[in-house]
Amino acid sequence: MADFLTSQSEDFSKWYNEIVQKADLADYSPVRGCMVIKPYGYTLWERIHDELDRRFKATGHVNAYFPLFIPMSFLEKESEHVEGFSPELAVVTHGGGAELEEPLVVRPTSETIIGHMYAKWIQSYRDLPVLINQWANVVRWELRTRLFLRTTEFLWQEGHTAHATRAEAVEETLRMLDVYADFAMKEAAIPVLPGRKSESEKFAGAVASYTIEAMMKDGKALQAGTSHFLGQNFAKAFDIQFLDESNVLQYAWTTSWGMSTRMVGAVVMTHGDDQGLVLPPHLAPIQVVIVPIWRKDSERAAVLDAGRQVKQRLASLLRVELDEREGYSPGWKYNDWEMRGVPLRIEIGPRDIENQNVMVARRDTPGREGKMLVPMSAIEAQIPELLEAIQLAIYNKAVAFRDSHIADVDSYEQLKHAVEVGFARAWWAGNIEDEARLKDETKATVRCIPIEQPGGKGRCVLTGEPATEVAIFGKAY
Amino acid sequence: MADFLTSQSEDFSKWYNEIVQKADLADYSPVRGCMVIKPYGYTLWERIHDELDRRFKATGHVNAYFPLFIPMSFLEKESEHVEGFSPELAVVTHGGGAELEEPLVVRPTSETIIGHMYAKWIQSYRDLPVLINQWANVVRWELRTRLFLRTTEFLWQEGHTAHATRAEAVEETLRMLDVYADFAMKEAAIPVLPGRKSESEKFAGAVASYTIEAMMKDGKALQAGTSHFLGQNFAKAFDIQFLDESNVLQYAWTTSWGMSTRMVGAVVMTHGDDQGLVLPPHLAPIQVVIVPIWRKDSERAAVLDAGRQVKQRLASLLRVELDEREGYSPGWKYNDWEMRGVPLRIEIGPRDIENQNVMVARRDTPGREGKMLVPMSAIEAQIPELLEAIQLAIYNKAVAFRDSHIADVDSYEQLKHAVEVGFARAWWAGNIEDEARLKDETKATVRCIPIEQPGGKGRCVLTGEPATEVAIFGKAY
Repeated sequence: MADFLTSQSEDFSKWYNEIVQKADLADYSPVRGCMVIKPYGYTLWERIHDELDRRFKATGHVNAYFPLFIPMSFLEKESEHVEGFSPELAVVTHGGGAELEEPLVVRPTSETIIGHMYAKWIQSYRDLPVLINQWANVVRWELRTRLFLRTTEFLWQEGHTAHATRAEAVEETLRMLDVYADFAMKEAAIPVLPGRKSESEKFAGAVASYTIEAMMKDGKALQAGTSHFLGQNFAKAFDIQFLDESNVLQYAWTTSWGMSTRMVGAVVMTHGDDQGLVLPPHLAPIQVVIVPIWRKDSERAAVLDAGRQVKQRLASLLRVELDEREGYSPGWKYNDWEMRGVPLRIEIGPRDIENQNVMVARRDTPGREGKMLVPMSAIEAQIPELLEAIQLAIYNKAVAFRDSHIADVDSYEQLKHAVEVGFARAWWAGNIEDEARLKDETKATVRCIPIEQPGGKGRCVLTGEPATEVAIFGKAY
Repeated sequence: MADFLTSQSEDFSKWYNEIVQKADLADYSPVRGCMVIKPYGYTLWERIHDELDRRFKATGHVNAYFPLFIPMSFLEKESEHVEGFSPELAVVTHGGGAELEEPLVVRPTSETIIGHMYAKWIQSYRDLPVLINQWANVVRWELRTRLFLRTTEFLWQEGHTAHATRAEAVEETLRMLDVYADFAMKEAAIPVLPGRKSESEKFAGAVASYTIEAMMKDGKALQAGTSHFLGQNFAKAFDIQFLDESNVLQYAWTTSWGMSTRMVGAVVMTHGDDQGLVLPPHLAPIQVVIVPIWRKDSERAAVLDAGRQVKQRLASLLRVELDEREGYSPGWKYNDWEMRGVPLRIEIGPRDIENQNVMVARRDTPGREGKMLVPMSAIEAQIPELLEAIQLAIYNKAVAFRDSHIADVDSYEQLKHAVEVGFARAWWAGNIEDEARLKDETKATVRCIPIEQPGGKGRCVLTGEPATEVAIFGKAY
């Protein structure tokens, strides 16, 4: 255990708050509930951005940008939507020194303003589908905030699509859920459970909401991305109509889907340990750090030179840094980079130069087991392979942890015990009132009704009524 | 002249407003002064983003993100700053259903909130320099707005750096001015004049402001990017202090620099013509469009197949689209893509397949001169070369236009005439009052005092006083 960091077992929440700041991911700002994303944390977000953006474009989407401000009256056009968001709004009442005629809301999400524009742009079935994504900041006035997990302002992407048929919109909703799951598993190395949100957890204004749910190392759930089938609700509220192929006026079918800077928090809480962050190689701002080691001043120049050569050879293949800082011991540097979660460390000393080797240490495997000699001639081949091995290893570790913390339960008592340490999985046929009772009595909620179902029938774990679906239950961030 | 577009000579301003909308760059939003950046315009911005971001990182900068909201009291800490920005502020007075104790300003620029954070982060000379850039939206309550050129909300990047010495901060200010000039010339193909802002045109709170000034096709000036040496003004206002190597407490020296979505407007007004946009190949969302041509239905399959093959061969080298739309004639498609400014069009018809050629048409060279046959076997080699030739040609054309619209004048009367059609260049030794008089009488302003000076001495064009510098004068956007 690092002596500057609270251990996870002692207080996971405190561990999280400490490591986010110590590793320079983020800082508190003077504005209540807003965060400052520091360069190291922002670079992680840039990697998330790039990997998601690539997937969005590969599935036919384009980016655009809509205004930050939304007239208050727009939100009121969709009744469930305004009810869901009105307690969280930040409102601009003055502009250019004068009071505004109509207050402007700082966007909490953009269905309404985008719906307004789509109504203008979409006239005919030939204009469909519209497949637009936006990278933006949004504001939700949260009472209890935590860096990355719940902040008044956060960064995200929000996809907004419009389709000619219900089937196409449903297909899009599930396609983007797949994109999120694929990103989470392959890039963030986070196993996720894709599923449908229960009635009380769905997005304000949606017909159906889908989610990918991840399990953090304290056994709690984190909703890592959502995809909503909005039916014709927003099309009717904003008059998004088109002439179909038979020249009949129809309402469009719309979807929306989002993933946010919350994903940074998910990475921290899925992989981190008592030494600090453990970053998945695909997202790590620095994948490899080279630490030069010398005892005598006479060794310094040769060691630094060798370090620079190794850096140069790797620089076109991966994200590599050489730690040339003066006045810090190699041991101090090891701890520092471990705390920052760099997946792989290369140590170079005089003997390594002599033997034409480098010593490599894996962040995910502590002690001697994680260390190995790599011939200097083989670094271009072996270092990228090692990074892929780490990516896979931390994913498998997270899967094993998650699976060992999901309990199949068939009684409410068992469920109560299970959600103290992880997820419970059980038959479920509850309604909104049952969900409220469950939350009240256990602090847990229905996290999702998984897409993959066992089939067959059972009895609802809460009510005993006949049930055809199993749900995942857990306490959530 | 395209019949759907006002000609530039008839009404340049109307031409601009029309083409920005017709080419799907942007649209008006229901919120006063805010714009919607449509996918085609946003993709252009993404290209600007990527080219700038690459240059920022190559000069040692990292990205971070600071809050959208700034306490009103922060702006008041730097007296010139608050005086400059207070007429333009949007103010949040309510959050989460309650009135706020202190109103929050929606950032018009971030010197103040970033200054506050730097004061916390910077303790020692070892913490310097801090070289951070932010990509963000900002809000300035403008009275008269125009898409891209002046909007209430716009997207930009703002660099904010802190240094141990005055010399380093000045060097950084000029380095980033160089980066902007390099980007403008090499990527946007816009010739710019780098120079110092006059006293009345400088940034609110800066010691000195630098700018790159571009000339639009109507002879007016557009400030395309600015870089500010802030001295110790913000360091003193926000208490950014550090212990130097002699353990003496010093105030840091800071800079800031920004370029915005305005650059999209600059691209439109530098290169566009009566047929529509002319986009520089380095920034064009689509660099090459392939238009398949057939008369008989029996030719259709072979032509489309050839088009797809050409697209596939070029796709890894450049941004290429195949126009497979049904129900539009080739001629209609030519006009459509010309209007959208795609640099190069490839036409493929049955005879081209037979002869193993493609017909290529340059957007920047109208008529027969811009058309040529390229052997099918040579497209990978010749098409990218042609794009580079276009990039250079439109830059040279813009330089020629600019240079033929700058008049060296030595009387105030000549200056008045010159700024009706372009820029005037003249000796200048005016003060703030002289600048006010100049603007009042001519509607022109000192655009910049160019970095490159002729040397020697002269008489101020306005006052007749001895002058050691020449300035550029023009009417500005």
